[in-house]
Amino acid sequence: MIQHVVMVTFKEDAGEEQIDELERLLGALPAVIPEIRQYDFGRDVLRSERSFDFALVSAFEDLEALDRYRRHPRHQEVLQLMGRICDRTQVVDFTLKR
Amino acid sequence: MIQHVVMVTFKEDAGEEQIDELERLLGALPAVIPEIRQYDFGRDVLRSERSFDFALVSAFEDLEALDRYRRHPRHQEVLQLMGRICDRTQVVDFTLKR
Repeated sequence: MIQHVVMVTFKEDAGEEQIDELERLLGALPAVIPEIRQYDFGRDVLRSERSFDFALVSAFEDLEALDRYRRHPRHQEVLQLMGRICDRTQVVDFTLKR
Repeated sequence: MIQHVVMVTFKEDAGEEQIDELERLLGALPAVIPEIRQYDFGRDVLRSERSFDFALVSAFEDLEALDRYRRHPRHQEVLQLMGRICDRTQVVDFTLKR
């Protein structure tokens, strides 16, 4: 199982309603993309100097399943919105040992 | 429940044996810090241009439990090693909805 983790910062001019829309779009994905095994996300609550603004923690059976998810039209829709409102994006994909 | 997510990049001179040691120290924490509810970590396997080198995905009952974990001597030991071998560190703490 692959843990796919994404962290982003939002652009200064990203609006609350756009971030709400991102959460709405993300929340709809597990029901339409069968490759998704885990899908948790949310806004940072600690706001430390090392904090990014938002994270997604997801899991997929393997790298092929992750790739199908990436190319899914509904995920592409999310990427388009993220391109408009996100500043920095960092990703780590690691193998879950459990 | 709070999802505590950490991503790091390693310094160029960080050695394999130091990264192995980090994994060994992290792997020992769930048995000694009762606040830990989830603790998964690993090295990035995709190596995209947005990839950091390593991530930790953990969960704690609440922010107080997360704070006790942070201050635990065995966690402090990990932070000291990370200070020596990590370059950039980014964190997101979000509320798990499930």
